[in-house]
Amino acid sequence: MTVTHTQLANAVRALSMDAVQEANSGHPGMPMGMADVATVLFTKYLKYDPQDPEWFDRDRFVLSAGHGSMLVYSLLHLSGYARPTMDEIRHFRQLGSPCAGHPENFLLRGVESTTGPLGQGLAMAVGMAIAERHLNAHFGDDLVDHRTWVIAGDGCLMEGINHEAVGLAGHLKLGRLITLWDDNGITIDGGTELSTSENVAARYEASGWHVTKCDGHDPDAVRFAIEEALADPRPSLIACKTVIGYGAPTKQGTSATHGAPLGDDEIAGARKELGWDAKPFAIPPEIEEAWKKAGQRSRNEHKAWDDRFAKSAEKDEFERRMAGELPAGDTAIKAYFDSLVADPPKVATRKASEMALTAINEALPETIGGSADLTGSNNTKTGATAPLTADDYGGRYIYYGIREFGMSAAMNGMALHGGVIPYGGTFLVFADYCRPAIRLSALQQVRVVYVMTHDSIGLGEDGPTHQPIEHLASLRAMPNLHVYRPADALETAECWALSLKRKDGPSLLALSRQNLPPVRFDASENLCARGAYRLKAAEKDRRVVLLASGSEVSLALEVAQSLEAQGHGADVVSMPSWEEFAAQDDAYKADVLATGSDVLRVSIEAGATFGWERYTGTDGLNIGIDRFGASAPADKLFEYFGLTEAAITPRILSALKS
Amino acid sequence: MTVTHTQLANAVRALSMDAVQEANSGHPGMPMGMADVATVLFTKYLKYDPQDPEWFDRDRFVLSAGHGSMLVYSLLHLSGYARPTMDEIRHFRQLGSPCAGHPENFLLRGVESTTGPLGQGLAMAVGMAIAERHLNAHFGDDLVDHRTWVIAGDGCLMEGINHEAVGLAGHLKLGRLITLWDDNGITIDGGTELSTSENVAARYEASGWHVTKCDGHDPDAVRFAIEEALADPRPSLIACKTVIGYGAPTKQGTSATHGAPLGDDEIAGARKELGWDAKPFAIPPEIEEAWKKAGQRSRNEHKAWDDRFAKSAEKDEFERRMAGELPAGDTAIKAYFDSLVADPPKVATRKASEMALTAINEALPETIGGSADLTGSNNTKTGATAPLTADDYGGRYIYYGIREFGMSAAMNGMALHGGVIPYGGTFLVFADYCRPAIRLSALQQVRVVYVMTHDSIGLGEDGPTHQPIEHLASLRAMPNLHVYRPADALETAECWALSLKRKDGPSLLALSRQNLPPVRFDASENLCARGAYRLKAAEKDRRVVLLASGSEVSLALEVAQSLEAQGHGADVVSMPSWEEFAAQDDAYKADVLATGSDVLRVSIEAGATFGWERYTGTDGLNIGIDRFGASAPADKLFEYFGLTEAAITPRILSALKS
Repeated sequence: MTVTHTQLANAVRALSMDAVQEANSGHPGMPMGMADVATVLFTKYLKYDPQDPEWFDRDRFVLSAGHGSMLVYSLLHLSGYARPTMDEIRHFRQLGSPCAGHPENFLLRGVESTTGPLGQGLAMAVGMAIAERHLNAHFGDDLVDHRTWVIAGDGCLMEGINHEAVGLAGHLKLGRLITLWDDNGITIDGGTELSTSENVAARYEASGWHVTKCDGHDPDAVRFAIEEALADPRPSLIACKTVIGYGAPTKQGTSATHGAPLGDDEIAGARKELGWDAKPFAIPPEIEEAWKKAGQRSRNEHKAWDDRFAKSAEKDEFERRMAGELPAGDTAIKAYFDSLVADPPKVATRKASEMALTAINEALPETIGGSADLTGSNNTKTGATAPLTADDYGGRYIYYGIREFGMSAAMNGMALHGGVIPYGGTFLVFADYCRPAIRLSALQQVRVVYVMTHDSIGLGEDGPTHQPIEHLASLRAMPNLHVYRPADALETAECWALSLKRKDGPSLLALSRQNLPPVRFDASENLCARGAYRLKAAEKDRRVVLLASGSEVSLALEVAQSLEAQGHGADVVSMPSWEEFAAQDDAYKADVLATGSDVLRVSIEAGATFGWERYTGTDGLNIGIDRFGASAPADKLFEYFGLTEAAITPRILSALKS
Repeated sequence: MTVTHTQLANAVRALSMDAVQEANSGHPGMPMGMADVATVLFTKYLKYDPQDPEWFDRDRFVLSAGHGSMLVYSLLHLSGYARPTMDEIRHFRQLGSPCAGHPENFLLRGVESTTGPLGQGLAMAVGMAIAERHLNAHFGDDLVDHRTWVIAGDGCLMEGINHEAVGLAGHLKLGRLITLWDDNGITIDGGTELSTSENVAARYEASGWHVTKCDGHDPDAVRFAIEEALADPRPSLIACKTVIGYGAPTKQGTSATHGAPLGDDEIAGARKELGWDAKPFAIPPEIEEAWKKAGQRSRNEHKAWDDRFAKSAEKDEFERRMAGELPAGDTAIKAYFDSLVADPPKVATRKASEMALTAINEALPETIGGSADLTGSNNTKTGATAPLTADDYGGRYIYYGIREFGMSAAMNGMALHGGVIPYGGTFLVFADYCRPAIRLSALQQVRVVYVMTHDSIGLGEDGPTHQPIEHLASLRAMPNLHVYRPADALETAECWALSLKRKDGPSLLALSRQNLPPVRFDASENLCARGAYRLKAAEKDRRVVLLASGSEVSLALEVAQSLEAQGHGADVVSMPSWEEFAAQDDAYKADVLATGSDVLRVSIEAGATFGWERYTGTDGLNIGIDRFGASAPADKLFEYFGLTEAAITPRILSALKS
């Protein structure tokens, strides 16, 4: 007996509506609407091997409309992945199940990225497609030759980031990126006509995309559209006209199917409508069999790849790159550290970052740098990195344009793809533009390095719109993000080393615009790895511990000198990273903070004081800026905001007296 | 002697290049490139009266490319505004000058909005244009009949928010919005071809805009294009082909003119090139005179408006609305408070917000609500608010679509325009998407109310992508934003009252998805105005002070009851707003926190503990969630993360023992 396309697709529909019903929570409409399209993709086109979910040359599939998570769980299960098991699907949206409300890359192999925050899935796919072409340029068709497929909804297309992602993909002519748009005309609030009148196809074409459309419930039409996309050299958008909640007799085509269980009656009706007799979570054996067989479609291709890989002269290097291991023996980097000790430079930490990157990019062929149109200000480009362009995917520097969010999401996609380590720059204040993607870097546990310069009022004349105030605090509050704010060139190199070593999460470097004097002269240990360390011990009887980061460390040293001159011993603690410090043992922390001693703890940082009481206590002193900045030359601003030795020392003396 | 257009425009160019040179900092390229276009606008089209910068029916002008701030300072000065004076222009970018690096609405009348963070100016202009049509629908052409003009650069167009703004403006058919695009082909990194291949005109047309183009240095061509835009019923984009830094002999047309002074030699060359002989900061009298005269173009129109206004039957109400004063006598709101006391409901605070809004929208005709496609979840729509659509601008509810950032920026524009009080909703986790605009609400000191629901793991099954963790902390860290997290329906009504009363900044309501029991039963004083207050005093000898917000207040009450039962007196402090509490006097704060008493202070909040040491001290206990959430039903998650009475009481008992 031949199993039909519709039966295969209905298995997806049934699992989706049943799991949502069982959870009494979830989004049945999208999986039911896109079941036909996804079935065509997973049974005819997608290159993957359920037995080896991490086969490097697999196609990448991103469910940008992440709320339709049951779609991907159904597809993975049916096509033969070991997980999710049927039991895990039954526990959809329950504690401990890998079938979370939205797909989480860290819970389930086969889920290429965490999606749900709309628009970001497609933008990450752009990054994956960039990484693929880049690695192809270096390792050739034999090792790297795959596509990136996306399923996106109306929400993904309406979000601002879509414009950035589409623009970047079109500009870079990423022809191996194919987006299947679930064109169902429905959003949560109702029909799309409530909020948009856009000609989506025309917009994509305006950015150099190929656009076609099809009836999303006619498998032949879907195939025809995909063939057309495959043949076109441009990135493709396929508008798949679908009915949301397809099969639900009274609710299909309405927003009622979007985000709530259908209910038992409607599900019974859908079973009838679809001709699906099987019980909940039961798949008729012949359909199960046909799905499994479809899941083995690419096995020969995988085998052939394995053979080529085994014989490849580049096997070891490729393996290293894909495993995300740094190269052994970092001569260039070691030499750079030595040079810093030999001749400590007085430079802005953004410049120090460029100096470190010069060595890093030499030693690590896997870095891909870039900036959101602030290359010369972020100091992100070094000699080793030629531009990555549509004509030369082998380049290692991306002119992202004025697309901070799109850049950040693309970097997430590159890191998820593997084989490259992306870093990208903008001003620290524009971390706000990138923030939803930074959160996904942290949640997805990917190695992305954010190079955020002009990290305080030290930016000067551009004024309050460009001066970060609350940004350090707001970033430190985010789980799994490491924020580094180095004090000089040596600390900058150390923080770069830590960022690159960190495999399971993003790092953010907050770097100064203005020149900073060297404060450390010994590179024998990476002290930034401690998060905070005693840079200068009190000479006189210790009465004060000064805690500072970045550009304020040298200021703290001045203050300490002044205090010592007046008879008060003062430690200076450089605190480049709260996260690294939090990971130290209690004894170390107590020693650095002089816990138990009767000292005044003072934080000095040119930003919001928010959070610093964690280290100073409520009886300490928090010196910072708890209002918006102003437009003036940097030195005037430091004076105006009381961030000078002359302003701080008296405050400390007065606190010591009280 | 007739003064030519070119002489008028050259006055702008000269002031711009000279001020940047004097400051040794700034962006001369854009003002020099757009001087012709801006001169045509300010001398022929813009409706404004320098003698009365706040004339309500003036056209609004937004310099979305805010880095070109010398353009607007020059225009204001030349056309006859009292400020900036020439001395203030000489002090461009210096401390205390209203001529800040980027235009700041709070420093200078005539600057309609704070711009610089790219893309947001145009998006705010969309909000202004919405407010204008809305008020026109209510007050008629006699009182409200003006246009919104924007100058935007390539950066504004490349940012993601541009897509949202363009989509919204096209959908709402805002034909009185005209954007002059400085189409100079240059970004900071170099030519636009480095990063974009977009057909901008086609993209705008795809969203229902009228698009035309002109030679931006030919005043007749500019006029012709503007006339075309005026005649077209759609919002218009005019691509003004310009040369960045026009007049600078060796640097024009290059990114070298973008963000740095030209240098003395180049400026001397430009003077020659432009035929401008006057000294720096000197304007030849006949040119000064011609500019002043142009600035008086709309005086008769203003006078006629004054006459109509004086005779208008709606004068008082219009005046109240424009002054941003709330109506006297808020019977509906008073009655609502009474009903809460009479019959305290157990509802989610998002539902309580809807209940409060029902009364508010009845009493305040100036509110305009909306949601970024989560109307039913944010509970933002009430019966009094019909949709605001292209067919009915008089409506008071906007279906913003999946455009969180665009919504937020549009709300800023509406609030800046005046006459309306905008509020809009999304999930709290997507405050990240809105964040750059929230910051501009705070910086610009505008009354915008963010209705952010699903404010913790209480959101449940949608999982970590949708569960805010660090958001409360990151928002509390932002200057001039009031964050409110009410505990029950009464507190929600109080927080709404505070948000509406607050004229000089934005408020953000963090509201629960899940039902919460009432905790307050007395409405005689708005206790949320205190920021924190003792909800329950210790019965036994006080050993613990529990500090909680929102959904954790009722939990704190349970914990207190359990502690009391075990002999330990415990205060419960409800803390809906850190900012309001910070504004209380020291005695009040000390009383609420029991400063000086030997008590254990415990914070309980279902989010990051970051920052809570400010109130608990480092020897207190901070109970919260310092990792990403998980997907499961809400009650399971509260258990899993230890946010139950059963989990918390033992931790407190153990801390009391140690």
